[in-house]
Amino acid sequence: MGKTHLYVASIAVNIAIPLAALAAEDAELLKQAQELFQPLPKDMATPEFPITKERVELGRSLFFDPRLTIDANMSCSTCHQPAFYGTDVLPKAIGVKQRPHPRHVPTILNAGTSFVIHWRGDRTNLEDQVFQALTSPITSGQPDEKAVIDRLARIPGYTPLFKAAFPDEPQPMTLRNIAKAVGAYERTLVTPSPFDAYLAGSQEALSAGARAGLAKFINTGCVTCHNGVGVGGGIYQKFGVVEDYWKATGSEPIDKGRADVTKDPADLYVFRVASLRNVAMTPPYFHDGSVATLAEAVKVMARVQLGVALDETDVREIVAFLESLTGELPADFATVPSLPPGAVVPAK
Amino acid sequence: MGKTHLYVASIAVNIAIPLAALAAEDAELLKQAQELFQPLPKDMATPEFPITKERVELGRSLFFDPRLTIDANMSCSTCHQPAFYGTDVLPKAIGVKQRPHPRHVPTILNAGTSFVIHWRGDRTNLEDQVFQALTSPITSGQPDEKAVIDRLARIPGYTPLFKAAFPDEPQPMTLRNIAKAVGAYERTLVTPSPFDAYLAGSQEALSAGARAGLAKFINTGCVTCHNGVGVGGGIYQKFGVVEDYWKATGSEPIDKGRADVTKDPADLYVFRVASLRNVAMTPPYFHDGSVATLAEAVKVMARVQLGVALDETDVREIVAFLESLTGELPADFATVPSLPPGAVVPAK
Repeated sequence: MGKTHLYVASIAVNIAIPLAALAAEDAELLKQAQELFQPLPKDMATPEFPITKERVELGRSLFFDPRLTIDANMSCSTCHQPAFYGTDVLPKAIGVKQRPHPRHVPTILNAGTSFVIHWRGDRTNLEDQVFQALTSPITSGQPDEKAVIDRLARIPGYTPLFKAAFPDEPQPMTLRNIAKAVGAYERTLVTPSPFDAYLAGSQEALSAGARAGLAKFINTGCVTCHNGVGVGGGIYQKFGVVEDYWKATGSEPIDKGRADVTKDPADLYVFRVASLRNVAMTPPYFHDGSVATLAEAVKVMARVQLGVALDETDVREIVAFLESLTGELPADFATVPSLPPGAVVPAK
Repeated sequence: MGKTHLYVASIAVNIAIPLAALAAEDAELLKQAQELFQPLPKDMATPEFPITKERVELGRSLFFDPRLTIDANMSCSTCHQPAFYGTDVLPKAIGVKQRPHPRHVPTILNAGTSFVIHWRGDRTNLEDQVFQALTSPITSGQPDEKAVIDRLARIPGYTPLFKAAFPDEPQPMTLRNIAKAVGAYERTLVTPSPFDAYLAGSQEALSAGARAGLAKFINTGCVTCHNGVGVGGGIYQKFGVVEDYWKATGSEPIDKGRADVTKDPADLYVFRVASLRNVAMTPPYFHDGSVATLAEAVKVMARVQLGVALDETDVREIVAFLESLTGELPADFATVPSLPPGAVVPAK
């Protein structure tokens, strides 16, 4: 069914409202949305972390290269899978040597729009995340910089890529530069969606159901935290403002959130508010992946954050709005690069 | 440097040979090659295993979907990686739950041209390989058909894909059909290379060095086993005709090859001859990935199969020929599909 038909159907249901009033209401909703949200930029470069073609090319290769990790069998893309919009399907990912990750994989798509990185905000930016991951016992398993660089230095194809990406440095093959290159690549990964077209003024980019969901998303109070360019990702918030979150999610164990990082009791159960971009494509939900479907996640959020019991229509319409945040996979992410060949064979 | 320049340089070195004689020699080499090898077909469909658009679409999704395996963290593409031409960088792959695979990952590119599947030929065709892999304790870890199908049945997006691929079947979601669909997808994955252009009559598709390598490949005797459409993949052969293979490769442990399958002493150390298509992109080499570079692999082969000690020029030229077997990655393999969403969350 085309979007126009859906719209007409919605008018037919709201039969008591005159057409002109409805149009005014739609115009008001758009205006409100434009104040609360911003469309995605074309990329996420900053003065500190510029994007160059050469850094992106290097960073993209490294992102897909399992040779960065201890057993050479996992890359960034193992958990941040293109097929699942930069995340995986598990509550908590499985790291190197089958070691469990403590929290759910956040997507790397549009991740540069978040004010901090990771659920507890303990990574300052994308580059910091990559840098720390490269020697993390769970993510990489490599003991130190030397182990990572020794591995890369034996792959002849990487030397020119590092030289091109960092032309002023005599020894460009460093963890710091790997982080900058992967960060530069990730800063290109934006997914403009129907909602961005809507924010740009195109009413018909959202179905009537999605617009109804947007209105409910705003009026129920979801927008208090989920706003801005990322529709989230801009602040910290306690998970369980009205009610303990684990009563709704069944979470086990209970994660204390940012309090474990800051040791401040005020941060108990506080997490970074998740960006909702592409949320329909990235189940399961929450910091521990404890909820499998988007409809259930919407209900849990309304209940524990706002003390609101949504009915089925509310949930369906809010989900329709959230689905309008799904963008196309960037071609540079959906398409895997062919990597410089080089075996990882133990010395004989 | 363009191919023309390389060619002229080669003529300059072989200064004693008149141009006309050289051209005749080149024409003779092409004729010989056309008798020994065949260009790749456009796909690898058979009457028993036809390719349909719907089967390929389903099979491609399944190929990239980690939800087929026990912990939902490994897919066919985890070991058969697009970034490494359908293989990985390890001597022997790491399976589910960190379980070791017994042999090196063969590429799935052009794999339908081989007369049997796996190093020891214990899979009759691609579909048989997929079918057995789906409940293999190392590859999948799933105990039985029910476990695999229960997982898939909970992902709503798969139901219409199976219906479309197998329209005449009331219950199309079966291991047998997963195998047929993945097989259909794999049968599309062909990589025409410069060597195919050469076989079609285009002399200049190969550099002079590669043509010299081709001549040596033929005259040294490599072609005895590595011939046909796959430049290998057509017969079984003992690894170590002249000398025990492990003396040259340092292999540990020693793999008895097909004898462990057939219990026939005549099959001791016998393996399927590997196809050499894309061989330059798929180190390490041999059934146990014991050799890291193509140059070393060429030397080992000449020594243990033919009793020939190749010099550095021989090796360089044969490697140049083998590099001409590298094709472009098929777009449907380099580009990962966006998969039907659906979390794998344990029941609460």
